[in-house]
Amino acid sequence: MNARPLFAACLLALTLSACTTVPTAAGTSAQEAAAAAKNRSPKEILDAAPDSDWRTPDPSNLLYMDLANGRVVIELAPQFAPNHAANIRTLAHEHFWDGTGIYRVQDNFVVQFGDADSDDAAKAKSLGSAKTHLPAEFHRSAQGLAFDKLPDSDGWADQTGFSNGFPTAINSKTGTAWMTHCYGVVGSGRNEADDSSTGSELYVVIGQSPRQLDDNITVVGRVLKGMELLSPIKRGPPPMGFYENASERTPITSIALAADVPESQRVPLQVLRTDSQTFRDLIEARRHGVNSFYKRPAGRADLCSINVPTRDPTGKK
Amino acid sequence: MNARPLFAACLLALTLSACTTVPTAAGTSAQEAAAAAKNRSPKEILDAAPDSDWRTPDPSNLLYMDLANGRVVIELAPQFAPNHAANIRTLAHEHFWDGTGIYRVQDNFVVQFGDADSDDAAKAKSLGSAKTHLPAEFHRSAQGLAFDKLPDSDGWADQTGFSNGFPTAINSKTGTAWMTHCYGVVGSGRNEADDSSTGSELYVVIGQSPRQLDDNITVVGRVLKGMELLSPIKRGPPPMGFYENASERTPITSIALAADVPESQRVPLQVLRTDSQTFRDLIEARRHGVNSFYKRPAGRADLCSINVPTRDPTGKK
Repeated sequence: MNARPLFAACLLALTLSACTTVPTAAGTSAQEAAAAAKNRSPKEILDAAPDSDWRTPDPSNLLYMDLANGRVVIELAPQFAPNHAANIRTLAHEHFWDGTGIYRVQDNFVVQFGDADSDDAAKAKSLGSAKTHLPAEFHRSAQGLAFDKLPDSDGWADQTGFSNGFPTAINSKTGTAWMTHCYGVVGSGRNEADDSSTGSELYVVIGQSPRQLDDNITVVGRVLKGMELLSPIKRGPPPMGFYENASERTPITSIALAADVPESQRVPLQVLRTDSQTFRDLIEARRHGVNSFYKRPAGRADLCSINVPTRDPTGKK
Repeated sequence: MNARPLFAACLLALTLSACTTVPTAAGTSAQEAAAAAKNRSPKEILDAAPDSDWRTPDPSNLLYMDLANGRVVIELAPQFAPNHAANIRTLAHEHFWDGTGIYRVQDNFVVQFGDADSDDAAKAKSLGSAKTHLPAEFHRSAQGLAFDKLPDSDGWADQTGFSNGFPTAINSKTGTAWMTHCYGVVGSGRNEADDSSTGSELYVVIGQSPRQLDDNITVVGRVLKGMELLSPIKRGPPPMGFYENASERTPITSIALAADVPESQRVPLQVLRTDSQTFRDLIEARRHGVNSFYKRPAGRADLCSINVPTRDPTGKK
């Protein structure tokens, strides 16, 4: 246990003012420098990351979801759900979601949005040129998938890690891989049939990771920015959180594909590469809790508690 | 895999109308009855629970936290933090929190409330007859603790389960037990010193369980009712979510000890006993996903994804 308050100091401090960070000492010996490197705070680790450790997501995989109070940015994961990703691109390109809304918020579970009448043939909004039927894409072969394995496993799969930033589990016996239901992950709502989702009705996890859904539904991506706009929306009535009145829905101004937005108007946003040494160092810092707040470092970090950092490469907030 | 949509059917259905429950057939053989019992839905399991499976929490362990839009009910856990529970009772009895507020909301982490000036000796509100110093109560001996063990373990402790409804982990090597940081758990904010919490500044987990805090801070209880009032509160600025302006805080009208409230005005509320067969049956239903929505039952349930049911014994909502 290191005595310096380096790791997200004062996580549960009484007030912000009580939180201090002690800088690492200058002019140390090689041994001390190595120890300091090991004990860097997440901020120090991130600040030292070379530009090559950051990637700029492909704009053809980015959705800009505009609400009255701000923008949510979602990255699609075609490596897990190529057919759903393609359909979602078409729906965004044709402005399917503009004027629709968030019609379900279930506490500690999901926010769900799209066409609230999608199940009513008489009222449902046309999907335009998007397909009305897609195959289920619950999992894929682990072969050929980029995979940055975490040191700790969990009870849900024998291997967990990240695939280009997306939380991922692998069952090494069956050779299958799937994106896991962590906070901020985006999935495609369906009815009972495996292949009843089209990508038009999407949900975002806003609570404890509902891992029982893993490999039971098609997961299409994750929120890179703007969770704080989705997570505080008023909960609908239990058990499932569908609002009783349309007036309670949160209107969606538009969902656009970043590739359809002029380059000058795109959100400047980069994501830390999960195959980088910087990311591995962040995980080690988390596992070993280099922070005097922690009296007993956990010695582990589980998949859904690991945040993949993003940044504005222009340096603005 | 059972073909009936019995288990929280249509969790991520496109609309609520698509969700149906098929009742179990009447007049079945003994074998069929046994199979039906095994395949009961959570609602069927709960509806069949004898009254003796429900407990009425001790009003001297219940806090009523009144916000402008409703009441949050918190159950204290003196078996884990006797000194903090006693201090919190005193603080509530003397109306310490009346007129204070929720001054911090960090997305996917915690809501924190109490006296925002607690760290400023000149401005801090008096704790009245409550103690200004308490011992750290991070863990206790597992000996003598009621413990309803779950079938599945996780990577954080070799045994997990519930102690009178509170999520609990045990390290059987050290013989220690602690309440785990699951959704809705209430802890006592502190500064760097182990023993710097008094119970006046409390936090509630509103996101993915921050298990790295386990056994690093004093946990005092959990929210039994009203999470949907706390979880949607506007997030404060990153990284820690403390509001910049006092006007952004959510006012707390009052926090009262239920024992100080006339019996006729108490919230009618019971909690399912976690040592009951009903609770064990619910866990099995969750582990084996008796629901046609699930194509691949998880075969496990982790501690922080298990909800301990509550009910209004008067039958009202």
